[in-house]
Amino acid sequence: MVDPRTSIIDERMRGIDRIIAVSSGKGGVGKSLVAATLALTLAKKGFSVGLFDLDFTSPSTHIILGIEGVQPKEEKGIVPPIVHGIKYMSIVYYSGEHVSPLRGVDVSNALIELLSITRWGKLDFLVIDMPPGIGDATLDLIRLIRNIEFLIVTTPSQLAFETVRKLVSLLKELKIPVVGVVENMKMNDSKTVQQQTMKLSVEFLGEIPYDSKVEEAIGKTNKLLDTVLAKKLENISDLLRCSKPKRRQG
Amino acid sequence: MVDPRTSIIDERMRGIDRIIAVSSGKGGVGKSLVAATLALTLAKKGFSVGLFDLDFTSPSTHIILGIEGVQPKEEKGIVPPIVHGIKYMSIVYYSGEHVSPLRGVDVSNALIELLSITRWGKLDFLVIDMPPGIGDATLDLIRLIRNIEFLIVTTPSQLAFETVRKLVSLLKELKIPVVGVVENMKMNDSKTVQQQTMKLSVEFLGEIPYDSKVEEAIGKTNKLLDTVLAKKLENISDLLRCSKPKRRQG
Repeated sequence: MVDPRTSIIDERMRGIDRIIAVSSGKGGVGKSLVAATLALTLAKKGFSVGLFDLDFTSPSTHIILGIEGVQPKEEKGIVPPIVHGIKYMSIVYYSGEHVSPLRGVDVSNALIELLSITRWGKLDFLVIDMPPGIGDATLDLIRLIRNIEFLIVTTPSQLAFETVRKLVSLLKELKIPVVGVVENMKMNDSKTVQQQTMKLSVEFLGEIPYDSKVEEAIGKTNKLLDTVLAKKLENISDLLRCSKPKRRQG
Repeated sequence: MVDPRTSIIDERMRGIDRIIAVSSGKGGVGKSLVAATLALTLAKKGFSVGLFDLDFTSPSTHIILGIEGVQPKEEKGIVPPIVHGIKYMSIVYYSGEHVSPLRGVDVSNALIELLSITRWGKLDFLVIDMPPGIGDATLDLIRLIRNIEFLIVTTPSQLAFETVRKLVSLLKELKIPVVGVVENMKMNDSKTVQQQTMKLSVEFLGEIPYDSKVEEAIGKTNKLLDTVLAKKLENISDLLRCSKPKRRQG
């Protein structure tokens, strides 16, 4: 079951201390916003941070961070450009802004290639913006990235949490560490998601209130760092640092 | 390029007047809520309506409509049960509530099988809750269902609309009719989405304000029909009836 290409990927990721896969049970919960802002926040604190957008269904961190006119450099692989203090790489550099979507096998090949060629160098954190849900691509990434840990984003919606339940079960079955659940776009003070998360024996990392300023801050990192979302993610990034799991053995 | 199984599917869908695929560029925009409530609304108006949940990524219309304890009946195929006046069929009856997701080819096979065995009989409308985005499953369904028309749900978010733009381009390229775009979870009176939709030469069907009562109404159809969402969808369903496209020729 070991893919020979995983050893190349292992080699490429050897200098990375923590790989945080920002994931969700379903789309539209703010996963990409959390991933991009978390990376910004960690960089602001002085960590060396990479952000890797692998959400082939709708890559958007380049829009969120207003990244334009930079391109990765080819040099014995691909060297990600540094933008806003973050080493940045995205599947858009591979697929472009094409209308025609990548289909199944192509997605898998694109992920393997991106993982195999990107030279991150030394990093404290690599934040990955994952595809939403438990599709083929998520399963591929779990198989390919040895030390992946999951940070799960949800909303207060019952429908969103049902999918989180499935994702957590799957991750437990596969023995993948879950650093915790973040409840995003909160509009009241219900504790349901917090309680349900704790029932799953998963850490509840905190809630982020709905903030209408976030929409205006898209593309403008200064404004983004000034949102409630960013402030909350600062606290959450402190929690992250205390929760390093044991490494899986290869 | 014609799949022999499409002729069986054509036969199964022959008695259906309109097939409305409720779709979205990305997840989390309320697609399933709109699909389920639209079906309810049309049934309330006296139309014969089917609801077909093919969102394999997170089937949820059975939760939204509070459907429990009914099962489709085997009888020269599968006869969907009638729930709240709607003929109802879902991929959950196929995949169950399993944690392990269906993978690529299995999804494709499940869709083909469900389309081939379900006996809808005569219907004015079949509402399909589509998988989000432009993945393999969406492309499969476009290929398999001859007279499919798309109703696209978005939110005011710029990130959501960027994915709508791609979906509309793809549908135009494939010559699939788009009945229009619905803007869901609106919190202010911006006209951006409306204007951008019109620029794509697609009809803007209306906006649905964010309504915190919807979350409480999940699983309770009486409450659901009493939401602003349902009222707005009544207007939209009137527009739907005036917009029947010419049939594609096989």
